[in-house]
Amino acid sequence: MSSEVKLTGVTFVTRDCSIARALDLIGEKWSLLAIREVFLGSFKFNEIQDNTGAPRDVLSDRLRKLVESGVMQRMPYQEHPQRFDYRLTPMGADLFGAITVLREWGDRHCGEPPRTFQHKCGAVVATKLVCRACDEEVTERNVRPIDSVTLGA
Amino acid sequence: MSSEVKLTGVTFVTRDCSIARALDLIGEKWSLLAIREVFLGSFKFNEIQDNTGAPRDVLSDRLRKLVESGVMQRMPYQEHPQRFDYRLTPMGADLFGAITVLREWGDRHCGEPPRTFQHKCGAVVATKLVCRACDEEVTERNVRPIDSVTLGA
Repeated sequence: MSSEVKLTGVTFVTRDCSIARALDLIGEKWSLLAIREVFLGSFKFNEIQDNTGAPRDVLSDRLRKLVESGVMQRMPYQEHPQRFDYRLTPMGADLFGAITVLREWGDRHCGEPPRTFQHKCGAVVATKLVCRACDEEVTERNVRPIDSVTLGA
Repeated sequence: MSSEVKLTGVTFVTRDCSIARALDLIGEKWSLLAIREVFLGSFKFNEIQDNTGAPRDVLSDRLRKLVESGVMQRMPYQEHPQRFDYRLTPMGADLFGAITVLREWGDRHCGEPPRTFQHKCGAVVATKLVCRACDEEVTERNVRPIDSVTLGA
C-alpha cells in the first residue's frame, strides 16, 4: 500500500510507512497540541482553545478530524442545552508515549523545560526506550530495517 | 516564556510547553518525513523527494528550516560542481525515539505495518518507555505534572 504521487506527468511511488500514516492523522501542530491538552485534563473546546492559542476555526476542524479518525471522542456533559467535551479514545491515549518522547526532546533542545512531571516512583520523569524482548535500550545505532534498506549507512 | 496570542482584541497567554516548542521546529508532516528519510539513509534532496512525495518547493523550504534550527546539516559530498546532502546533527539524531514511538503507534492503529525493524538482540523491535530512575514503564496513568495541573483528571 504505497502512495502514488503524480508530479509533472510522472508517477512516483513513495515509501509506505507507519510514520506517514500516523502523520496523516495527527501530524499537525494544532492537532498534537489539542491532544496534549486533553492529556492535561482540558476537555472543553474553550479550554483547549485558550491553552493552545489555536485559531477557533482551525481547532474546530482539527478536533473534527481527530474524532473522525478515532483519536478523540465527543462526550456529552450537559443535557439542556446539550454540550460536549473531548476525550481521548484508547487509540488516542496510546499517543502518550509519542507525546512524552517529543516533550523530552523539546526539554533537551528547546531551552529551559517549562514543566516537569513526576513518575509514581517519585523521580522527575526522564524516560528511555527499551526493547520489550531484552529490556536493553533501543537507539538508532542498534536497530536495522528487516527489509533491504540499510539504516544510517 | 509563554506565548501571547491576540484574538478579537483580547490577549490570551497560552501554555508554554516543550511539545509546542518541538512542534515549532519539526511539527509538520514533510519535516518529519524528511527526518525519517535521513534516518533510513537517504541523504540527497532527490532521494528524500522521491521517497516522501513532498512537493519540491515545500521540501526545499522544510530542509532549509531544519538546517537553520540545528536539526540537520548540509554536508558537501562533491567539489566540482559543489553538491551537498543532508545529515542529522546530534540534535536531529536524538529524534530517533520520537520517530520510533510514532512509527509503532502507526503500526498499532493504521493498518498492517509496512516495514519492521530488528533490535541488536534479534527481536523485531517493539519498545516500551521506562523510567530511567526505577526502570518501570511510564504510562499516562502513573505520571503527574509537578505543578498544580492535574493529569487526566
